[in-house]
Amino acid sequence: MKPTVIGSPLGGGVVPLGQRRPLIVKKFGGTSVAGIDRIRRIARIALECQRAGNDVVVVVSAMAGETDRLLKLAHQLLPLPDSRELDVIAATGEQVSVALTALAIQAEGGQAFSLLGHQLPVLTDKAFTRARIQWVEQGPIRRALARGQIAVVAGFQGVDAENNITTLGRGGSDTTAVAVAAALRADVCEIYTDVDGVYTADPRVCPSGRKLSAVSYEEMLELASLGAKVLQVRSVEIAMKYEVPVHVRSSFSEEEGTRILPREQVLEARRLSGLACERGQARVELLGVECSPEQVAELTDLLAELNVSVDMLCHARCSPESTQANINFTLPEGDLRRSLQSLEQFTTRLGARELRVSDGLAKVSLVGIGLRSDPGIAARLCRCLNQHGISVSGLVVNELRVSCLVDAAAADQAVRLLHDLFGLAGEAPVMEPMTSSAPA
Amino acid sequence: MKPTVIGSPLGGGVVPLGQRRPLIVKKFGGTSVAGIDRIRRIARIALECQRAGNDVVVVVSAMAGETDRLLKLAHQLLPLPDSRELDVIAATGEQVSVALTALAIQAEGGQAFSLLGHQLPVLTDKAFTRARIQWVEQGPIRRALARGQIAVVAGFQGVDAENNITTLGRGGSDTTAVAVAAALRADVCEIYTDVDGVYTADPRVCPSGRKLSAVSYEEMLELASLGAKVLQVRSVEIAMKYEVPVHVRSSFSEEEGTRILPREQVLEARRLSGLACERGQARVELLGVECSPEQVAELTDLLAELNVSVDMLCHARCSPESTQANINFTLPEGDLRRSLQSLEQFTTRLGARELRVSDGLAKVSLVGIGLRSDPGIAARLCRCLNQHGISVSGLVVNELRVSCLVDAAAADQAVRLLHDLFGLAGEAPVMEPMTSSAPA
Repeated sequence: MKPTVIGSPLGGGVVPLGQRRPLIVKKFGGTSVAGIDRIRRIARIALECQRAGNDVVVVVSAMAGETDRLLKLAHQLLPLPDSRELDVIAATGEQVSVALTALAIQAEGGQAFSLLGHQLPVLTDKAFTRARIQWVEQGPIRRALARGQIAVVAGFQGVDAENNITTLGRGGSDTTAVAVAAALRADVCEIYTDVDGVYTADPRVCPSGRKLSAVSYEEMLELASLGAKVLQVRSVEIAMKYEVPVHVRSSFSEEEGTRILPREQVLEARRLSGLACERGQARVELLGVECSPEQVAELTDLLAELNVSVDMLCHARCSPESTQANINFTLPEGDLRRSLQSLEQFTTRLGARELRVSDGLAKVSLVGIGLRSDPGIAARLCRCLNQHGISVSGLVVNELRVSCLVDAAAADQAVRLLHDLFGLAGEAPVMEPMTSSAPA
Repeated sequence: MKPTVIGSPLGGGVVPLGQRRPLIVKKFGGTSVAGIDRIRRIARIALECQRAGNDVVVVVSAMAGETDRLLKLAHQLLPLPDSRELDVIAATGEQVSVALTALAIQAEGGQAFSLLGHQLPVLTDKAFTRARIQWVEQGPIRRALARGQIAVVAGFQGVDAENNITTLGRGGSDTTAVAVAAALRADVCEIYTDVDGVYTADPRVCPSGRKLSAVSYEEMLELASLGAKVLQVRSVEIAMKYEVPVHVRSSFSEEEGTRILPREQVLEARRLSGLACERGQARVELLGVECSPEQVAELTDLLAELNVSVDMLCHARCSPESTQANINFTLPEGDLRRSLQSLEQFTTRLGARELRVSDGLAKVSLVGIGLRSDPGIAARLCRCLNQHGISVSGLVVNELRVSCLVDAAAADQAVRLLHDLFGLAGEAPVMEPMTSSAPA
């Protein structure tokens, strides 16, 4: 048996067993629960971890595909079904998973106790299908752990203050896992995925993409927001707020994955952490709007009301002496389709000269702490893409990222070019894992 | 539009609309929710009833077959899965049904609000997979009705005092419906089934079997206990205790079905209400037991502990001067297999002379209020069967029923013979519905 880590696996060293059992939250996604054999595998991973001296909480998603079939039935009934009822259906997927996982643990000789969103409860706001966690009650989990059980918690689901069932949106089980880890002050939250960590660039696009051993919360937040699908954005926000050590790792191997940590714990040697690419983007340009700060506010109000995910919003005078300005921003193509009519009405109301929209774009983003100290990076990026005939139709730079908008067809090439340009492949691993997590 | 009934449809006459909206609980079983088209049908039935001026609560079961598939997965993991976790899985079936039914009502232009067992709550004891309802909170349903919504309640499921999910056993949705109707003091609880009422005998066995227009709670309780599968026994118990008017009717027609009512409301003309037949029965005989009241108590303790469903238990001295007695009883064949070893040990401990078991039997029961006043009925029954070469291997007579044990192969013939013998087909309908229920 390996020595067990006590306290934060990132903070302290190895402390002998006996003072406090380390607490490990393990989250398994939809592909990890797809079928009895995979569920048995989760059970063995959890039990091995428990037998090594840890308290273990398992958070599971629905079996891949299961709930989709049921939700399709709902859409057969109504084109725009009531989201409260959709959540009632959607929550059944995880309900089945927790019970099967608990049974699998029992089948392997362990003890387990399933807990649903309303049984903890995981308290959320009232935004059905995309609710945000407000509070996780830890009592039921603590009691299960005290009985020697592995607590198996349903991901993705919660209840609002009126006990309506809510769900957290795509990838919501990550958020459940991190929120549970935060509530319990877990030593680590291990996110098992079908990739083995966070990469400098998607290795399917960029063969020289390299797995990062560690990345800061802030960088991960940018990467997740910009299309790196490893973690739900909200889960990273919660991890950052409560400083939950997160470990993104493979369901299929015991290799070390990527640690997500406070910035000061990520060694400074690496300045750029990776490239993210988000396809299916559209760009909206409102040209010749009479200048007034009111108008930008009105526009953002409208976009918030339409629940549109806006990025790269920019407001600039047409020329220094003009009283007119242009406003432009990007949004997912689906959001554009939904909101085009409202945008057209808004344009007319504003008396703007022209509304111009374009789609088929991709947003390629370079993320890293190093961007703060080197404003020249954006310029090098643009020059490189231009030299290779890739036109950049939008650019934003902030403390942690540079994002540029390119034609979707050129996105892969842009990722490969920039990966080379900024030496992301060549950089030596900047941080070795400081401690191993408990065996899994 | 038909006039709407106010107050108990059994108690008072027709009162003009406006004083209080009548409240109708409608329960739909698994075959009624099997598929989108059938769910739409439920929606239309419920809406038509609401539009006629009633408050409507719909109780639904799981889509037939849906949960069975999931429970099979559980049994793949463990031969004897933890019943707490089984209930977590089993409850998802109704969870999907309520949401789809609510959406179907919305799709038809109505308003609906789904409610799960834990959202009411339907409070039960802790007996997972066969829990008993202790309390139904009516608040959430009342609030939904006050908002003009149809409340769609999940049948079959509840929660215990610790918020564990429980289920009520086979046919449990009937019990949910009647318990909800009792809590709300509903005017009627309509049970939609794939038969159109309660029959004097199963028409598939006995072509002259006739639908009863009304039957008392007590008779229905006997019929349900004795294998008439129309209603779960527990639902009849609750209906009787709280005097909930129940109407068993067809999902496929608007015809009047069978009313289940207090005894005094069933007109006295009919003395015998029907024949029930329960197959798969076994008989146990403990021969030569030393007489002592203790032994019967010990035996029934043992049987209760084994959770065996015992009927026709009889304890009698071998002869008037003997100090030894014989004990015999019937039980379902499955229960016998489960408990045979314990029964053998018990026989040895008791020093009984012999344990004799036989299976492949059927219990044929004649049920009716009239039995009270005519002890000769049992004798006529036995004589008739004997004359036709059917040997009766056990007989009990009580206030409301005569049950006899015959070879399973002879059961159908016995039902037909007794149906004729007691003129069940020929009897004129003894009770016309006193009032119509609200249109459905």
